[in-house]
Amino acid sequence: MSAVVPATFKLISLQNPVFACYVNWTVLLLLKTMFLSIYTAYVRLKKQTFANPEDGPDGRRNVRFNDDDVERVRRAHRNDLENLFPGIIIGFLYVLVDPPTLSTCVLFRAAATARIIHTYVYVKAVPQPARVLCFSTYFMCTVYMAVAILMRVM
Amino acid sequence: MSAVVPATFKLISLQNPVFACYVNWTVLLLLKTMFLSIYTAYVRLKKQTFANPEDGPDGRRNVRFNDDDVERVRRAHRNDLENLFPGIIIGFLYVLVDPPTLSTCVLFRAAATARIIHTYVYVKAVPQPARVLCFSTYFMCTVYMAVAILMRVM
Amino acid sequence: MSAVVPATFKLISLQNPVFACYVNWTVLLLLKTMFLSIYTAYVRLKKQTFANPEDGPDGRRNVRFNDDDVERVRRAHRNDLENLFPGIIIGFLYVLVDPPTLSTCVLFRAAATARIIHTYVYVKAVPQPARVLCFSTYFMCTVYMAVAILMRVM
Repeated sequence: MSAVVPATFKLISLQNPVFACYVNWTVLLLLKTMFLSIYTAYVRLKKQTFANPEDGPDGRRNVRFNDDDVERVRRAHRNDLENLFPGIIIGFLYVLVDPPTLSTCVLFRAAATARIIHTYVYVKAVPQPARVLCFSTYFMCTVYMAVAILMRVM
Repeated sequence: MSAVVPATFKLISLQNPVFACYVNWTVLLLLKTMFLSIYTAYVRLKKQTFANPEDGPDGRRNVRFNDDDVERVRRAHRNDLENLFPGIIIGFLYVLVDPPTLSTCVLFRAAATARIIHTYVYVKAVPQPARVLCFSTYFMCTVYMAVAILMRVM
Repeated sequence: MSAVVPATFKLISLQNPVFACYVNWTVLLLLKTMFLSIYTAYVRLKKQTFANPEDGPDGRRNVRFNDDDVERVRRAHRNDLENLFPGIIIGFLYVLVDPPTLSTCVLFRAAATARIIHTYVYVKAVPQPARVLCFSTYFMCTVYMAVAILMRVM
């Protein structure tokens, strides 16, 4: 990490390979998360299990909150929100401390890949410790970046 | 989209009409989402249905998780989080690819209006396909911006 | 608030004390939120109550969604997401309107402290109005910043 941090307009710029890598993987992760909304709707239609009477053809008779498949996808979606929200914000602020290019791009790729695999193993109910490993990878990447940021600003 | 992207400090600037439009509608959408917290509390007080024993006058007797009105508002709130989080982040990154001013402001206004109407139709249980149309509008706007960003960075 | 707003690269810069304060407290709040994921797992292990059959040693027999302690931590976590997501985005945009240094740093510190205490009082089931006061403090800080931003861009 350089002692003098370049001006923001060089860091938050698509010409900065670190920021370009961040944007690339952030957008891919957010598209994946948004896809989970569509997949939830697909599973609801397949299981004829809805959250609101006005959503299904049989009104209140279709409203259930305990369908295994629907609730599993919703849990995966909530897990995404719980982890991506801190991770994406912290990732953006991390770019501003001018981190080393190569290791940071590796960090972003590893973290994003872990979250993509996490969603797959959650929805497909892959036995543990697959999901814990994916979760922990992204979690540790985010904590590492957070600590690096705090060491710079404190 | 210009071949050479202006420096960040011209794009992420309140003098940039695209960014001013983004800020305007993002803040309005976030205020709407925050209002849903207050509205949830209002409905909880009206129905005397709380999530925690310490919240209501009759302790555990008021704790219920199946009140139709309360849970409907909470579902609308969660739907906001699931969609606004990707949309607002992607919108910010979209400003950085220097999109055309007029079409982008129309995009931001249409997307935000769709989300505002979405909350209303969800809470008031307006029959489908009202909610699906609102959801899809914001979703397609966000996917469009995401793809535009990826085409720039990849 | 100055009539002419300095260029973005002076505002979104770690040399700007307002932005440094924002980054500092935002990262601390996000670390606290991420800690709630770990704490949820700890309580699940302690109560042997899991959300998925593959998570626990006894498969489906451990799957419950009504354990008081587990659900309380999850409610605190969701409350964090509902409030920090708008607050952190609005805080970032607020830095861009070049607010006064001293009052803004006080605002960020007060808001962040309120959220940290909020998590503690929620998880420990401290009687009301402790949680309402914490929630309202952060809520009012965020609304104040949102209105200030709208007054600048409208």
